[in-house]
Amino acid sequence: MENREKKGDVCCASSPKKGRLTIPTDASFVEGTKEIAALWGADAVRDCDGTSLPKNPHEIAPLVYKTYFVVRGDNEWAKKHPEEAHRVFLLSDTVTADSSLVRIPLLRHYLKDQFALDMANVHRFQAFDRTLGEEVPFEIDEKEGTALIKNAIPYHEYNVDFVARLLWHPTQIYNYLTNHWDVEKDMVYDPSFPKTRQYVKEHLKRWLEENQDVDVVRFTTFFYQFSLFFNEKGKEKYVDWFGYGLCGSPALLDGFKKESGIALTAEDLIQAGQYNNPFLVPNEKFRRYMDYVSRFCAGLMKELVEIVHRHGRKAMMFLGDDWIGTEPYGPYFADVGLDAVVGSIGGGVTVRMLSEIPGAACHEGRFLPYFFPDEFHEGNEQGVVDGFNKSWRSARRALLRKPLDRMGFGGYLSLAAKFPSFVDRVAEVADEFRDIVETAEKSAPYCTMKVGVLNAWGSLRSWMSHMVAHELWYQQIYSYQGVLEALSGLPVEVVFLSFDDVLRSGVPDGVDALINVGARDTSYSGGSYWDNPRLLEKIRSYVAKGHGFVGIGEPSAYAKDGHLFALRDVLGVDEELGFTLSQDKYNIEAHESFVNADKKGGIDYGEGTKNVYALDGTEVLDIDISPRFIRKVNVGEVKLAVNDYFGGRSCYIAGLPYNGENARLLYRALLYVSHKEDALKKAFSSNPNAEVSYYPEIDTYAVINNTDHTQETVFYDADGEPTKLMLKPTELRWIKGKK
Amino acid sequence: MENREKKGDVCCASSPKKGRLTIPTDASFVEGTKEIAALWGADAVRDCDGTSLPKNPHEIAPLVYKTYFVVRGDNEWAKKHPEEAHRVFLLSDTVTADSSLVRIPLLRHYLKDQFALDMANVHRFQAFDRTLGEEVPFEIDEKEGTALIKNAIPYHEYNVDFVARLLWHPTQIYNYLTNHWDVEKDMVYDPSFPKTRQYVKEHLKRWLEENQDVDVVRFTTFFYQFSLFFNEKGKEKYVDWFGYGLCGSPALLDGFKKESGIALTAEDLIQAGQYNNPFLVPNEKFRRYMDYVSRFCAGLMKELVEIVHRHGRKAMMFLGDDWIGTEPYGPYFADVGLDAVVGSIGGGVTVRMLSEIPGAACHEGRFLPYFFPDEFHEGNEQGVVDGFNKSWRSARRALLRKPLDRMGFGGYLSLAAKFPSFVDRVAEVADEFRDIVETAEKSAPYCTMKVGVLNAWGSLRSWMSHMVAHELWYQQIYSYQGVLEALSGLPVEVVFLSFDDVLRSGVPDGVDALINVGARDTSYSGGSYWDNPRLLEKIRSYVAKGHGFVGIGEPSAYAKDGHLFALRDVLGVDEELGFTLSQDKYNIEAHESFVNADKKGGIDYGEGTKNVYALDGTEVLDIDISPRFIRKVNVGEVKLAVNDYFGGRSCYIAGLPYNGENARLLYRALLYVSHKEDALKKAFSSNPNAEVSYYPEIDTYAVINNTDHTQETVFYDADGEPTKLMLKPTELRWIKGKK
Repeated sequence: MENREKKGDVCCASSPKKGRLTIPTDASFVEGTKEIAALWGADAVRDCDGTSLPKNPHEIAPLVYKTYFVVRGDNEWAKKHPEEAHRVFLLSDTVTADSSLVRIPLLRHYLKDQFALDMANVHRFQAFDRTLGEEVPFEIDEKEGTALIKNAIPYHEYNVDFVARLLWHPTQIYNYLTNHWDVEKDMVYDPSFPKTRQYVKEHLKRWLEENQDVDVVRFTTFFYQFSLFFNEKGKEKYVDWFGYGLCGSPALLDGFKKESGIALTAEDLIQAGQYNNPFLVPNEKFRRYMDYVSRFCAGLMKELVEIVHRHGRKAMMFLGDDWIGTEPYGPYFADVGLDAVVGSIGGGVTVRMLSEIPGAACHEGRFLPYFFPDEFHEGNEQGVVDGFNKSWRSARRALLRKPLDRMGFGGYLSLAAKFPSFVDRVAEVADEFRDIVETAEKSAPYCTMKVGVLNAWGSLRSWMSHMVAHELWYQQIYSYQGVLEALSGLPVEVVFLSFDDVLRSGVPDGVDALINVGARDTSYSGGSYWDNPRLLEKIRSYVAKGHGFVGIGEPSAYAKDGHLFALRDVLGVDEELGFTLSQDKYNIEAHESFVNADKKGGIDYGEGTKNVYALDGTEVLDIDISPRFIRKVNVGEVKLAVNDYFGGRSCYIAGLPYNGENARLLYRALLYVSHKEDALKKAFSSNPNAEVSYYPEIDTYAVINNTDHTQETVFYDADGEPTKLMLKPTELRWIKGKK
Repeated sequence: MENREKKGDVCCASSPKKGRLTIPTDASFVEGTKEIAALWGADAVRDCDGTSLPKNPHEIAPLVYKTYFVVRGDNEWAKKHPEEAHRVFLLSDTVTADSSLVRIPLLRHYLKDQFALDMANVHRFQAFDRTLGEEVPFEIDEKEGTALIKNAIPYHEYNVDFVARLLWHPTQIYNYLTNHWDVEKDMVYDPSFPKTRQYVKEHLKRWLEENQDVDVVRFTTFFYQFSLFFNEKGKEKYVDWFGYGLCGSPALLDGFKKESGIALTAEDLIQAGQYNNPFLVPNEKFRRYMDYVSRFCAGLMKELVEIVHRHGRKAMMFLGDDWIGTEPYGPYFADVGLDAVVGSIGGGVTVRMLSEIPGAACHEGRFLPYFFPDEFHEGNEQGVVDGFNKSWRSARRALLRKPLDRMGFGGYLSLAAKFPSFVDRVAEVADEFRDIVETAEKSAPYCTMKVGVLNAWGSLRSWMSHMVAHELWYQQIYSYQGVLEALSGLPVEVVFLSFDDVLRSGVPDGVDALINVGARDTSYSGGSYWDNPRLLEKIRSYVAKGHGFVGIGEPSAYAKDGHLFALRDVLGVDEELGFTLSQDKYNIEAHESFVNADKKGGIDYGEGTKNVYALDGTEVLDIDISPRFIRKVNVGEVKLAVNDYFGGRSCYIAGLPYNGENARLLYRALLYVSHKEDALKKAFSSNPNAEVSYYPEIDTYAVINNTDHTQETVFYDADGEPTKLMLKPTELRWIKGKK
């Protein structure tokens, strides 16, 4: 954070009420940009998709960012080297044989503008009888683009893993189809091939020469797009924000084989259509391939960053688009030497996912709404302000725990300028943001405890669990994602632990409680890890020795001996799989406890978990007995329970979508299992819709209203001294302590 | 059915309005019994638990039944031969080690009056480290009744399989504890031991000599009680109406080993506490042991029945209490030579379970309510009548398809006599019952199609699937049980097929559609059977060739390749396990179809099934999109769908608790998948609360109102001719056809 004032430093903040803010601009909106930049205290301007920087951009702001694409944007190069396009392993339709001959059109149901069959890699194609789970011989009809399986067994299912060349950059397809753009289609080129590898370095040097006005090169991003396939109707067919599908480069596969001796096949990448998505418990092969790819990426990223630095500029990475292989929490990232990272902010989780990335001095969040006509249209001024406030409130509680260094916006500033109440509100929020950052620079926020989130990925995917498409809601995940969203703003320190970490060295000292959250068999709950006796020993002994364990959804799930939860002794609950129905379950009365003291009933468990029952001795806190089952026996699903386990404690929660009350419930559960109930009413708001962050080194409190309504609360200072407060909608109130 | 008039025939019916009815009596209620017997047309009297037959019972009715216990009732014998008591393999509590020494009190949490540790069989005890899944050495402290495990691994779970002697007959414990009886505790003796085997035959002979008045020996039942264990508080701890737990006789185990070479261990019977319950996919060892036990039982049953016959009496078996090993649908039962079976009637399923038992000439149902003070108390006269009507309505629709031969009641007749409106109503129902039986004797009811219910048990457990305790409701089963309850009264022929049947010889000719219903991994949905390619070939080709498949709950579930339903190609739906979230699912719009024409929304799927989605091309008929998810994407759970599969069709239903509308939904689904939509409006009621049975050989219809409200309906005759009808509450109307 030194040299803050130096021109070109991406964290520059020239005065307390200025700086730390990036705004979009456009050649056609120079004067307007200047006015807004002054009002908001913006110190950086950037171009966006669909806009271009004006001449002399430094007239607007001391910092100028420009988007830079590494693997697209030069169709001439792409056309000259089609053999160096990105490759992707795809799965064909699954076809049930009704005779001995099966013909499968490989690219049917894929967007023909996105993919072309890669006959150069036909030796990597694999056909399967999925009913048998066996590979079968096949022939390819190149002209028709079909695979032919002879000697098929009637009523078995067949499909084919094949390789395609990527013809069009997927993010551009998305923008093209979503925003009806009519631009030239960006082809792609893969720097794992030697010519392109050399080319991307030369191109960057040229570009830097040609763009002397640019202070910060905003890489969007590096080499490999996350998995994003479109169907024949131009609609999204497959999306995995973590997917390595589009780095199926033959060059990488060959390099990996040379280094590791492991010859990855199509099926290793496709896994019968699961495409090694992050919900799968990762296998060793795939982990090693990820490591190889991210090592390759980090090496080339470092070369590019060094070029940028040699030209006296700063390098910023956008966490999105082609971010695959960068693994910001992986072992190679910090060494790349990036000056900054930037990403889109959807809530507290994305704040923490960005703000904690190691190895970059500056972390910038691009806030919502994006200045696009879908939001910024006539009659929606209040809607835009409300949406911004909502997004700000959800991000703010996380910023108070671990702030970003900068905020920013994207889109057409000229559109935003038409909504004066939005413009005014951003000015206020920008000041609030700067206050938060500068407060946190003076003192780390007070934490009551340290929590370890335990899953198969651990720190490699810090704040990244339970996500499919970036920030999108899925019915199957929101009841688990809510746990991380709640954590992002709670006064607890959060670390991410993998099962392998625990197997290797146990639960680290200082961790007061573990959280395991997710659906059975997934990497997040842990799947087959829970069949490892060593893991069970370590977790059980950790809890028994006086620590806490909070399980949400299907924690420690691994079906065995008719039971599901491997830690049912710790949790005091298990899920009925149908094999222990004969055992009478009498523990069905709900009790009050420290954990549910704020909310006795009506807790929103989201999708919840079915068929959970309490073992004898467990303290049930909430059980769902539908009114229509009244007078029935053998009924009731436990939704919330606590259990004593030797010297430790556990809490089970059926699901936890994010809301203020649930964040409070989780906080109480964490304190309870850690025997820290006494810490509750210190730096605390009695009303769960308000939260308190305390900065002990400057004896200052931030009290926030997380709603758009007035909230009355009792604020407790760090000594437990109560004061009644009335908070305005969305208010942040700074309170100086009495010390 | 010949010799109907002969004294002692259990199906005797002396005139159209007399007979086919058994009533309880008591020595203290002779005159009252005579009056009621005349009013109801009863032709048989019986004793019950807690009552005794009067002298000269034939003054009341031409037939006299008396309860006979084979393995209890002679405590003198039991005391003399404690080594021939029943044995049971039990599982101790599970204890987590917190040091290397684990002490497990074996009978803790069991009722001490029910079990005693059987040190004579200590060589059969087994201790387990369940965390490792490995057997471990142990010592027994006989005085303390504990097992001692030294060298335990801290934080592993341990428990012990052990053998106990049964001290008290479980059904009597139930009655004793439920009705606060104060009687001598019946001990038990097991005829797999040679002395008792001889004794039970001699005893029966003596008893027959001493009970010359008795026409029908009502065996209650034979040798082995279903699994029923009580806990230390005298409450039910474990109940499995199908459980072989209480026939863990060392003599049987040794005999089985001698015959088969298979040495069953404690763990084979206990299976980590699952006790080989019927929800487990049965393994080969256990199947063979069941076969051995039921062969043994049938042999001795036959000897006892022959003794009864030699004494000129009839033998009747009560399907309950000690019925384990009799397997009425097994290969040995028909050869036993029983004259009659009797069982408790809870609804249509129990009617069919009894009425279809092969090898017995007479099938009697004991109807509810039981004449006990819990129902027959002051102020509950209308309640008793209503309860009886409800139970009658639910049984009647099944009786119309496959009637019982007799009906009966149990309890204290003197109590029932105090409720004149109940007495009158039984008289009416008894006449209705006789009408039904005699109609069905003249013509089999018309069926539109033949349905095969496919599970791991097949015909061995006809009408017995998804049951835990006899007739009791469980939250995890009612959404599946409803399918059989619906089937029991539908105009379809029902057969039960096992996966092994289908693997051996395919789906039998004439079966129009298959049903597979149940929760994943259970014997009812099929579990690992669905990983057998041969099974998939046979079922798929069966459907493809023009037949139907109806799946309810988690049909064909076997988790593989990220998918759950092995027949997803047939069903057109799959359950999202979290591994294919990245794949976009667009088929979320509900359509109308023949299947849901009666009910467009608001179908009660019971517990339903979560996370089911439709593949492309499937016709979704109902999808649950919660109002709170409005404006969310990636949402919706398919509840009802149909799919074309080559020449065949399928229907998926998320769950089907029994009610009139759901029975109709199932019927429509079955007709639809069988391409028999045209058969719907023939011998049919437009209103699902009414149903029609047609007897073609006498061109007669029975139209029933299945509710206690008046119902208006359009009745269609066998030619589809409509007539509007108004049915009184609970009415059965006989309609003569026009042919």
